[in-house]
Amino acid sequence: MSEKGETCRHSKTEKIQMKKDKLKKEPTMQFLLEVVEILTNYVKKTFDRSTKVLDFHHPHQLLEGMEGFNLELSEQPESLEQILVDCRDTLKYGVRTGHPRFFNQLSTGLDIVGLAGEWLTSTANTNMFTYEIAPVFVLMEQLTLKKMREIVGWPDGEGDGIFSPGGAISNMYSVMIARYKFFPEVKTKGMTAAPRLILFTSEHSHYSIKKASAALGLGTENLILLKTDERGRVIPADLEAKVIEAKQKGSVPLFVNATAGTTVYGAFDPINEIADICEKYNIWLHVDGAWGGGLLMSRKHRHKLSGVERANSVTWNPHKMMGVPLQCSAILVRERGLLQGCNSMCAGYLFQPDKQYDVTYDTGDKAIQCGRHVDIFKFWLMWKAKGTVGFEQHIDKCLDLSAYLYNKIKNREGYEMVFDGEPQHTNVCFWYFPPSLRSIPNGEESRERLHKVAPKIKAMMMESGTTMVGYQPQGEKVNFFRMVISNPAATMSDIDFLIEEIERLGQDL
Amino acid sequence: MSEKGETCRHSKTEKIQMKKDKLKKEPTMQFLLEVVEILTNYVKKTFDRSTKVLDFHHPHQLLEGMEGFNLELSEQPESLEQILVDCRDTLKYGVRTGHPRFFNQLSTGLDIVGLAGEWLTSTANTNMFTYEIAPVFVLMEQLTLKKMREIVGWPDGEGDGIFSPGGAISNMYSVMIARYKFFPEVKTKGMTAAPRLILFTSEHSHYSIKKASAALGLGTENLILLKTDERGRVIPADLEAKVIEAKQKGSVPLFVNATAGTTVYGAFDPINEIADICEKYNIWLHVDGAWGGGLLMSRKHRHKLSGVERANSVTWNPHKMMGVPLQCSAILVRERGLLQGCNSMCAGYLFQPDKQYDVTYDTGDKAIQCGRHVDIFKFWLMWKAKGTVGFEQHIDKCLDLSAYLYNKIKNREGYEMVFDGEPQHTNVCFWYFPPSLRSIPNGEESRERLHKVAPKIKAMMMESGTTMVGYQPQGEKVNFFRMVISNPAATMSDIDFLIEEIERLGQDL
Repeated sequence: MSEKGETCRHSKTEKIQMKKDKLKKEPTMQFLLEVVEILTNYVKKTFDRSTKVLDFHHPHQLLEGMEGFNLELSEQPESLEQILVDCRDTLKYGVRTGHPRFFNQLSTGLDIVGLAGEWLTSTANTNMFTYEIAPVFVLMEQLTLKKMREIVGWPDGEGDGIFSPGGAISNMYSVMIARYKFFPEVKTKGMTAAPRLILFTSEHSHYSIKKASAALGLGTENLILLKTDERGRVIPADLEAKVIEAKQKGSVPLFVNATAGTTVYGAFDPINEIADICEKYNIWLHVDGAWGGGLLMSRKHRHKLSGVERANSVTWNPHKMMGVPLQCSAILVRERGLLQGCNSMCAGYLFQPDKQYDVTYDTGDKAIQCGRHVDIFKFWLMWKAKGTVGFEQHIDKCLDLSAYLYNKIKNREGYEMVFDGEPQHTNVCFWYFPPSLRSIPNGEESRERLHKVAPKIKAMMMESGTTMVGYQPQGEKVNFFRMVISNPAATMSDIDFLIEEIERLGQDL
Repeated sequence: MSEKGETCRHSKTEKIQMKKDKLKKEPTMQFLLEVVEILTNYVKKTFDRSTKVLDFHHPHQLLEGMEGFNLELSEQPESLEQILVDCRDTLKYGVRTGHPRFFNQLSTGLDIVGLAGEWLTSTANTNMFTYEIAPVFVLMEQLTLKKMREIVGWPDGEGDGIFSPGGAISNMYSVMIARYKFFPEVKTKGMTAAPRLILFTSEHSHYSIKKASAALGLGTENLILLKTDERGRVIPADLEAKVIEAKQKGSVPLFVNATAGTTVYGAFDPINEIADICEKYNIWLHVDGAWGGGLLMSRKHRHKLSGVERANSVTWNPHKMMGVPLQCSAILVRERGLLQGCNSMCAGYLFQPDKQYDVTYDTGDKAIQCGRHVDIFKFWLMWKAKGTVGFEQHIDKCLDLSAYLYNKIKNREGYEMVFDGEPQHTNVCFWYFPPSLRSIPNGEESRERLHKVAPKIKAMMMESGTTMVGYQPQGEKVNFFRMVISNPAATMSDIDFLIEEIERLGQDL
């Protein structure tokens, strides 16, 4: 027995050595499976509330190197064993964005089917520009975009669209297409071929509209910011007044962006009233539903985007409210042909007309990109796995949780809501007043001190690693917390935990 | 024994039922591991030359549904079992871009470490815009960009840069930054604040420069195409003549793009001579090294980019010649501050100045995107695993293989090279004349028939699924094959196979 045992089994040291030897060789399936083990352990821990959301270090600390984790690149290869350690350390010093208590961004959570979809996408490692090399993905994109257009409410899902690398680029597309629709000669002659073009968007809208106006040569001064009500929604009368003013100055109002779910307040601009004005003055209406588009999947909440079917284009990021892994953003266009007309350059080496299949399926010439990452598969796969009803349940649940948070703190001592009334989206914006601030009368001193509260609490949260939530100022309002919920793993107990944590960390400030 | 056996073991039917039951439930680690099994089987087959490169179907066939593979999305969820089938089918009807006989694109191959890196990236599921939520990735990007700038040859790797969603967007950045450098007021006032700006690029350059000129409001007519020599390289004298002409017309020459590795011929424009002209006339010099940038890693081949250190900006796509999974493209900028100046909008809700860490590490305001996919990690991990020397070996090997192909066919019966002399990059461009065409004298009939040869052979290749190689016309030249080699799995035997296959499929045309 003893002899047999010795020949069959290896000592622990021997096993480690064998593992080391194996890993010195070419990376193989074995190596990949070792990485998978690291990743599945990470995923399990992500969902475990006793795990920290992050293990915070300052840039200089990580740059100096943490116990064997050296970011520097070198001439000679590292062993695969060290590569595995590097993978572990990369995750260790990162942030668990799927953790049930990570509330810092609009994109949170870690959907297992979506993750599997993304792993398959990386394995397929192809490019969306032609049907030739991405037949299945190109068709999935086409069908999914049609489905999204149906949900927007365009007849028979007609129109066009494309997945782009994020909401900012989707919004940029919308401005480009609007310009092409009204002034197609800009494509060949440049902006000097057009009159002075004016864009309109709310003070509360996403900064990508401003980035687009700069990039596309319109100029940020030709982007007019619209006033909002106390809830952050555009005041339509202000839009009309500014349209008239622009026309009187000899400019051409080109484009209005209505936000469906603003970044900070989660406000929905009144699309129907804005659409009336756009129709009256013949202006392109874009709806930026990067954040709020997901609510279209919910019978209970989709009324907040009422009128979206009147838009000429819509941005909708499934990687936000629908829990799809990053990146997944669609720009939808009501009129067919504009995307192609605006962007096509007919590169002969990529889009040969004499291929054996129907080349209208090639998508590359519609894009401002050439190569384009496959963003569709994970979304398609999640839709298959959840069904439309699954997305609806997820969205309704997140909105219920935010209502729970709102009701919990609206009359709680030490809290003040940034705006009155139940939030339209999952954004709950509030100030926390530490006990020492509660007795100070409103005034400059109080404001100055309150402005520092959220950053201080946030810093402590990050250092203790227990939870993460965003904060920012807005206009005249000093720093406040912006809570958002898009994580399917979050529950009421996590909301309770956040509030306890704010109070624990903030009580002595 | 029999009783024991019955309680311990389950019949095959029972086992299948148990598996089904398990998969009806919530997706778990078990589901993820089942997907991993599908993926690792796929990877193994990808490297197996007896496997087809693709199983071609027309769009209408896939849309009609293939034996249980239904692309349509529905209201209700599918079982996880069906989801696994969907994953298998998605791969089955796709294209194996990592197959040693896939030569169709500039991006080929499937690096196991890169793949592992991408799986980790999807699992971390975070966003590059702030250090706060991507501390490790942000630092990796910073260090890697610095290393790339050192390799370009900028002193101490000084400068700036960012990873973008592909070479087209990187090239678009270069035009934006050039415009900002010389006419910063365009950011606020639009293109009307600038004189007529002219861009220059070669006839053989990538169409993304043209897309950028349209998108950014410069207009494609203000992009001047430069003549090339018979090898597809810019003729510097033509550049200077056209610069002078533009100035005489009162326009302002703003930007010259020199291509390092053109898409079709793999030509390297003479950067030093172009740089002389740019310096003389104070014009921004961009080097589009999306395809050829990788050669900088090779001591043997980097001389082809001689002068690149004089460029103001450089596009370099590790996802092409360096075998990094899609997407991975960098725009490098010599002067620090321009990227930030050009794109920053200082969104208060994202980039709070009062964070507890050094916020200069936040990268979001440099980008035209808001959210930005983590493209760095797979590249960083591959660099760790291969070392600089590993990339060099890969590049040298691919160039050796293309020299092998060139030498094999340059005097072979039935072949004609599109341009004379050994290719500069791995692009080998050639016509194949089926026997029936060899006796026909040069002329219109011969040209017309030759034009149809490559598409026909390509269609047959795809239908038999044995290999894939690109073709296109170029200027007056009728359709020819463009062979490119970037796949580390390719060997001389695969080159031999391609030639045999062209001859097998083409002999009766």
